[in-house]
Amino acid sequence: MTTEQVLPGSDQGEAFCTEAGSAVERVFRLLGKRWTGLIVASMMGGPVHFAEFRRAVPGISERVLSDRLTELAAAGLVLRQVDPGPPLRVSYRLTEVGAGLRPALAELGRWAEECLPSDAGCPGQRPTC
Amino acid sequence: MTTEQVLPGSDQGEAFCTEAGSAVERVFRLLGKRWTGLIVASMMGGPVHFAEFRRAVPGISERVLSDRLTELAAAGLVLRQVDPGPPLRVSYRLTEVGAGLRPALAELGRWAEECLPSDAGCPGQRPTC
Repeated sequence: MTTEQVLPGSDQGEAFCTEAGSAVERVFRLLGKRWTGLIVASMMGGPVHFAEFRRAVPGISERVLSDRLTELAAAGLVLRQVDPGPPLRVSYRLTEVGAGLRPALAELGRWAEECLPSDAGCPGQRPTC
Repeated sequence: MTTEQVLPGSDQGEAFCTEAGSAVERVFRLLGKRWTGLIVASMMGGPVHFAEFRRAVPGISERVLSDRLTELAAAGLVLRQVDPGPPLRVSYRLTEVGAGLRPALAELGRWAEECLPSDAGCPGQRPTC
């Protein structure tokens, strides 16, 4: 088993470096992209194989999943692990930094359970909490 | 001063209605869009006039800001208030549902302060916490 960190090199990574901001800005620059929060949440239970994300994050394409994991690794939240096998398998797990999001994700989940029913936003349905 | 709720009617609103999912999925379907989390965070201190968002959320266009506020209102997080003036001014404030995100945003901010320095993700810089 080898562990490597994906280094940033994308345009996104460079844009990230030139934009400072408040803590909340920095959080949402990272998590405020479609799928990213859900990808992080899906690793809270332990390492996840690439193919397993496709079930945990319904509707995501392989290309976008790969891009998001690269961004998360570049930000220090995720480690890529290669199990040489055979069969060779690649999995991803949270670093301590990434796992540190657990209390925040728990709070978000609690809020959604209480205040954001699955039909919130639909005509005639109002959330209550 | 009159208060109205923006009703959902966009394609986004309808797509939202047909996709159920876990609580965390529902949260990130809403907040996992560029700017949305920051828009919510900027209202935590009280009502915000449309023009003030442009300062609080640097880089956002009027069109996207308007779309995001409409989505948040449709989901029951935001109320639009019209002060007839003169001058007529429109402001936005969080509902109780929206304000219920305060503990989660506080947790996210705490995590970012501790673990996500402004240069996290830049070459040679690793977050530590």
